[in-house]
Amino acid sequence: MTNSSGKIQMAHGTGGRLTRDLVAAVFGKKFSNVILDRMDDAAMLELEGRFAFTTDGHVVSPIFFPGGDIGRLSITGTVNDLAMMGATPLYISAGFIIEEGMPLADLERLALSMREAAGEAGVQVVAGDTKVVEKGAADRIFVNTSGIGLIPPGVHISGAGARPGDVVILSGPIGDHGIAIISQRQGMDFDVEIKSDCAPLGGLVRRMLDASPRLNVLRDPTRGGLAASLNEIAAASRVSVEIDESRVPMRAAVRAACELLGLDPLMLANEGKLVAFVAAQDAGRVLEAMRGSPLGAEAAIIGNVLGAEDPHLPSGRPCVCARTVMGSRRIIQMPSGEHLPRIC
Amino acid sequence: MTNSSGKIQMAHGTGGRLTRDLVAAVFGKKFSNVILDRMDDAAMLELEGRFAFTTDGHVVSPIFFPGGDIGRLSITGTVNDLAMMGATPLYISAGFIIEEGMPLADLERLALSMREAAGEAGVQVVAGDTKVVEKGAADRIFVNTSGIGLIPPGVHISGAGARPGDVVILSGPIGDHGIAIISQRQGMDFDVEIKSDCAPLGGLVRRMLDASPRLNVLRDPTRGGLAASLNEIAAASRVSVEIDESRVPMRAAVRAACELLGLDPLMLANEGKLVAFVAAQDAGRVLEAMRGSPLGAEAAIIGNVLGAEDPHLPSGRPCVCARTVMGSRRIIQMPSGEHLPRIC
Repeated sequence: MTNSSGKIQMAHGTGGRLTRDLVAAVFGKKFSNVILDRMDDAAMLELEGRFAFTTDGHVVSPIFFPGGDIGRLSITGTVNDLAMMGATPLYISAGFIIEEGMPLADLERLALSMREAAGEAGVQVVAGDTKVVEKGAADRIFVNTSGIGLIPPGVHISGAGARPGDVVILSGPIGDHGIAIISQRQGMDFDVEIKSDCAPLGGLVRRMLDASPRLNVLRDPTRGGLAASLNEIAAASRVSVEIDESRVPMRAAVRAACELLGLDPLMLANEGKLVAFVAAQDAGRVLEAMRGSPLGAEAAIIGNVLGAEDPHLPSGRPCVCARTVMGSRRIIQMPSGEHLPRIC
Repeated sequence: MTNSSGKIQMAHGTGGRLTRDLVAAVFGKKFSNVILDRMDDAAMLELEGRFAFTTDGHVVSPIFFPGGDIGRLSITGTVNDLAMMGATPLYISAGFIIEEGMPLADLERLALSMREAAGEAGVQVVAGDTKVVEKGAADRIFVNTSGIGLIPPGVHISGAGARPGDVVILSGPIGDHGIAIISQRQGMDFDVEIKSDCAPLGGLVRRMLDASPRLNVLRDPTRGGLAASLNEIAAASRVSVEIDESRVPMRAAVRAACELLGLDPLMLANEGKLVAFVAAQDAGRVLEAMRGSPLGAEAAIIGNVLGAEDPHLPSGRPCVCARTVMGSRRIIQMPSGEHLPRIC
């Protein structure tokens, strides 16, 4: 290792020998590929077609949690943003901001997680950057990842693409990531350990596109949960969305934790789930394709799209509402509070 | 504005209504373009050719300094990494990690700086992300930018491209950025204010490529300064580099500040300078082209490339050395200390 203290020092961030040694020892070996190994100011990529390009900062606390860590999350988070455009994720950049004093062993462990997640997702880490700030100027480590993915011809997926009549499909049970983080943070001990669902969704999306190229909207309900995603889609598409609460998949342990903590599961973050808006005639085919993948095994139709001004809805504007188990309807608002900071 | 306190709150980072409002109010309007305005999970880009892709985290302290701020720096830093591949910078992503309590007015000011710098550089900000952490978990704001640029056909620039006989050209006086930051940080008052040189170098590089497509190496000497850049190039190209100290352009005020503070100007960060390695027969043409641009007006030939084992060099391995004003030679080491943390 590059120093005897086993901890990150300020000198690891000044661009000199220690920076070079750290990058070589921790990142260079793990992410080795012909593009990264050139170690130039930028990676060189041959590209042709329509590409998705996205960026995501990760500040999750704690950095290690059941089912994952900030390293794994930083890969899956960005890969999933690309997948939500229907893109095949290809290239990732990783920027680290590290607090002085962080154990090098932790950094090694995060780099290994990133490599593993990149392998699962089929992406290459081709560019990186490392900065170090003084003790107390950051909380251990923040990881920014940006990504590039190829959008296949004929695929046109956008938050503005929902149409009245579309069927809303959710890929699996919600809330796992949110509850995993909260329980770890608060030292809570449930009978059943709830693990983060963080996983790369590119493979699932490819299966779905094979079943139907007419996916209108895909979104991964991360920060703000399903409530935020559905509200964003309704607003962008100028439609209303109605879901049936009883059909939303959820683990019993997550439901119990939400009741205990007074949390709305629709507002909990997920890191390995997606919601899809699909033309009704293709919904069965897409659902079947999803269920054939481990990451979509519990996929379910949870609702459908109405016109913005459908008379069955309680308001005259685009909105999201849920039929409750009691048979009534309630509006699902865009979350506004600060109940779950640093969830991703 | 989105709240009455005029400060960033934790709720600005939870992905709900306040996040959406903040992004719309501060970033959406300033960076408005057809790609960003879709507000999907990723930007959609039509690309064909060879592209450079890079990422850079910015943690400079203080965030406002003479000649720039962390917003301007975050654009120019990434644009310059692309330009050092000979690429025309095109698209930028911006990821913000903001400390709770940061004044919204400061964030507005940084966003304006970014827009201005993006305009100068001719790039579009097409993707973004905003996270908020608790007071004390970050130092005001960190900005990660990633970028994509198009490499013209026939251009093959790399740190490994230096050849014995190449001429080393520096685009202008060194050390301005480093001294600007240090003097601001330490509350020092020089007779002449030294401003950061932070500026986008894409236009200068295009002029140079028009003069000669045979640029072998380009690098912007940021963290670690000219000393780090030359050592990286020597190592990657397996050559030795000899510069003439008396030819390295430097402002009198920077020289005086270095003497006062005991700093080696070769190790000071620059944010609007480049060093080029050019075949000898093209050096005159390239130098003339550089001097025709405001950002290269003081460009100078500062040295040349020797074989790794040139008998004039004091060591038998690839190295960087300087002929001193006294006529002797000294080895320029890769910087190893922590003398200038958080310079960019």
